[in-house]
Amino acid sequence: MNAEIISVGTELLLGHTINTDASHVARELSPIGVNLLFACTVGDNVARLKEALQSALQRSDLVITTGGLGPTGDDLTKEVIAETAGRKLVLHQESMDRLLSYFKGRVLGETQQKQAMLPEGCTVFRNDNGTAPGCGFETEAGKIIIMLPGPPSELIPMLKNYAIPFLTRGEKATIVSRIVRVFGLGEGAVAEKITDLTDCSNPTAATYAKDGEMFIRVTARAESEAVAAAMCAPIVEDLKSRLGDYIYGIDVESLEEVVARELAKRKMTLATAESCTGGLLAARITDIAGASDVFHMGVVTYANEIKTLLLDVPEETLKQYGAVSEQTARAMAEGVRRKSGSTLGVGVTGIAGPGGGTDEKPVGLIYIALSDGERTSVRKMNGNSMKGREYLRYLAVSNALDMVRRSLLNLGGLEEAAYSKRT
Amino acid sequence: MNAEIISVGTELLLGHTINTDASHVARELSPIGVNLLFACTVGDNVARLKEALQSALQRSDLVITTGGLGPTGDDLTKEVIAETAGRKLVLHQESMDRLLSYFKGRVLGETQQKQAMLPEGCTVFRNDNGTAPGCGFETEAGKIIIMLPGPPSELIPMLKNYAIPFLTRGEKATIVSRIVRVFGLGEGAVAEKITDLTDCSNPTAATYAKDGEMFIRVTARAESEAVAAAMCAPIVEDLKSRLGDYIYGIDVESLEEVVARELAKRKMTLATAESCTGGLLAARITDIAGASDVFHMGVVTYANEIKTLLLDVPEETLKQYGAVSEQTARAMAEGVRRKSGSTLGVGVTGIAGPGGGTDEKPVGLIYIALSDGERTSVRKMNGNSMKGREYLRYLAVSNALDMVRRSLLNLGGLEEAAYSKRT
Repeated sequence: MNAEIISVGTELLLGHTINTDASHVARELSPIGVNLLFACTVGDNVARLKEALQSALQRSDLVITTGGLGPTGDDLTKEVIAETAGRKLVLHQESMDRLLSYFKGRVLGETQQKQAMLPEGCTVFRNDNGTAPGCGFETEAGKIIIMLPGPPSELIPMLKNYAIPFLTRGEKATIVSRIVRVFGLGEGAVAEKITDLTDCSNPTAATYAKDGEMFIRVTARAESEAVAAAMCAPIVEDLKSRLGDYIYGIDVESLEEVVARELAKRKMTLATAESCTGGLLAARITDIAGASDVFHMGVVTYANEIKTLLLDVPEETLKQYGAVSEQTARAMAEGVRRKSGSTLGVGVTGIAGPGGGTDEKPVGLIYIALSDGERTSVRKMNGNSMKGREYLRYLAVSNALDMVRRSLLNLGGLEEAAYSKRT
Repeated sequence: MNAEIISVGTELLLGHTINTDASHVARELSPIGVNLLFACTVGDNVARLKEALQSALQRSDLVITTGGLGPTGDDLTKEVIAETAGRKLVLHQESMDRLLSYFKGRVLGETQQKQAMLPEGCTVFRNDNGTAPGCGFETEAGKIIIMLPGPPSELIPMLKNYAIPFLTRGEKATIVSRIVRVFGLGEGAVAEKITDLTDCSNPTAATYAKDGEMFIRVTARAESEAVAAAMCAPIVEDLKSRLGDYIYGIDVESLEEVVARELAKRKMTLATAESCTGGLLAARITDIAGASDVFHMGVVTYANEIKTLLLDVPEETLKQYGAVSEQTARAMAEGVRRKSGSTLGVGVTGIAGPGGGTDEKPVGLIYIALSDGERTSVRKMNGNSMKGREYLRYLAVSNALDMVRRSLLNLGGLEEAAYSKRT
């Protein structure tokens, strides 16, 4: 089935709002066998919306609109679609009841009421996170039209809970998706290892790269959840055997989530000492709710004197090797571990740029040390200075988290940095 | 002039990449008097790109494409446009020379070389941040076509430096934009104060909200930069008088940039002690290149014992008032200031959620203290727990930065939190 998205909203054409709805919809369509061929954005304008709708209905089997269902005068998607498809708008009592209970007590203005007017004979999608319901119906020419609200917080659950089931209603098909997360292998290296898997159609495997990591989304469609899950399983196993311990998690959110969970399992704690990452490592760990069980102390020792004051980094080490050195990273990791009484200590020091680089120690050179009290490992990262300060800092933190993960799971590769230069 | 954007790329239709290019382009068009009426996305497909292009050339005066200019087989925007517009692709020697110098020494494959083939007679837009140049030309029917590369890091500067000047070439019109940044006033409150200003057409004033802040972009178009700047000036002055010291900067990037600059001006330093924000305050300050002049030390004291160990927060204070209290925030700010020898100390403690809240101390309650050695001010933030942990942490950090800014500039309002509940 070929589909097309029409996003409605003048704000999208002014550039003040980035259209993420189209991406959300697109991502959900391919697993159910729908190919998105066009996506377009029009303003809150009757003539232009009608034109876009007519073109879409000519060339596509399914047209999904996002936005323009709300109570204001600008919201005209339903009216234009009803007119174009030759349907009357009629009162949907259940939606009206929901509106009345939403505005309990307050008088409901006429513009609010129009949200309960829906095309005759359509399937109504309840809005569990707002006031404007969505809907879907088939035109006389056999085309399917679906209308969804604009705000992502309303669109995403409505799409998942009502619109996708509506589209797959005859099929009794269920979708199961698994996300495989990879750190330390670049986009090219991953693609090379799994090309044959990304060519399949059900289950599908799709890769994408973000912030120095790679994700592979495996999706299967089948008559039941159990069958779909069973279809995903061998692909996930195959990915595991091909990508090995570069996979840091399956159906997890982030490296920091894995690190916090593995520390908690072992009743272990981690302390951090940061220079160039300036608190970002601590911030990512403490972004996990409940991090207080595994994280008690972090320090940002930006100045040399503070490295000595808080972590007992020897002045001679700083003098002889410099603040950006393997030796200083070691002393920071060991110092913060000792000082905090934590099981593990991490030290990060480097040059995030844009200034401060030299021929010997260029921008992007970052040392990350991990001490467990018995031994201290050091990872040297040669980050690509072209990618900028923010990226280098983020990648250094990801490398630190990856080191902790590998250490906890007794994996090798502690010294292998994921160089941004490689990706 | 009416315009249309065509974004080219199958990845955009799979939903793995969010199309931010269209927003960037849209935002730059309205100040030069161009109305964007449609935006559409097509995959890397000759027939569908051609169809989109033909529709666009029929209804719009200006068509801007993004993406599909690179070296791979999928990149076919130029070829399709050249064919549709009846132009030959010819070698552009300067672009070839740039490619050769970019790949210095390495043999240039045929696919790389095709990046230097451009429509005959077009104006070439140099790519200062990548390999594929863009271009613009007028068709025989008097329509303007502009092609830009897909990656935002290449598109944004090319649009600004070459495409916009190309579009305004006859007019000798120059655009000047000023960004006014506001913290501590919600969207509604700002809108109420400046509605009349946002209704004008040249200069324009447009507001947008992001991450708990408000921005107002003032843009003027005139025959010279000096005239355009002079047109912006009174609007900016008017905004200043209406919004007062809620404006934290004009043409600046962030609160942290202002704080770092104002500290540096006074040769002052700041130290941070964080609990619920877990290093995010230190991370935002050290995101500014050169922060090492004004920031020497930060601590993340997540556990009570660490607050006592590193900052001498009295055990009695923790016992009597709790870790989340005005008293603890004060002791943290004063402790980190003393310990680090910095001019100023900030302490942040609170409940970011989702767990850990009580009736007395709900999720979203965060205390922020600032000590200058003589007095310690405390801001109490009642954040909206519905907005989530990440938002609460971010807003607490923004409040901390705002306190430092107000203190340095001797402004009032140190205790006035920008509650997320208010926006």
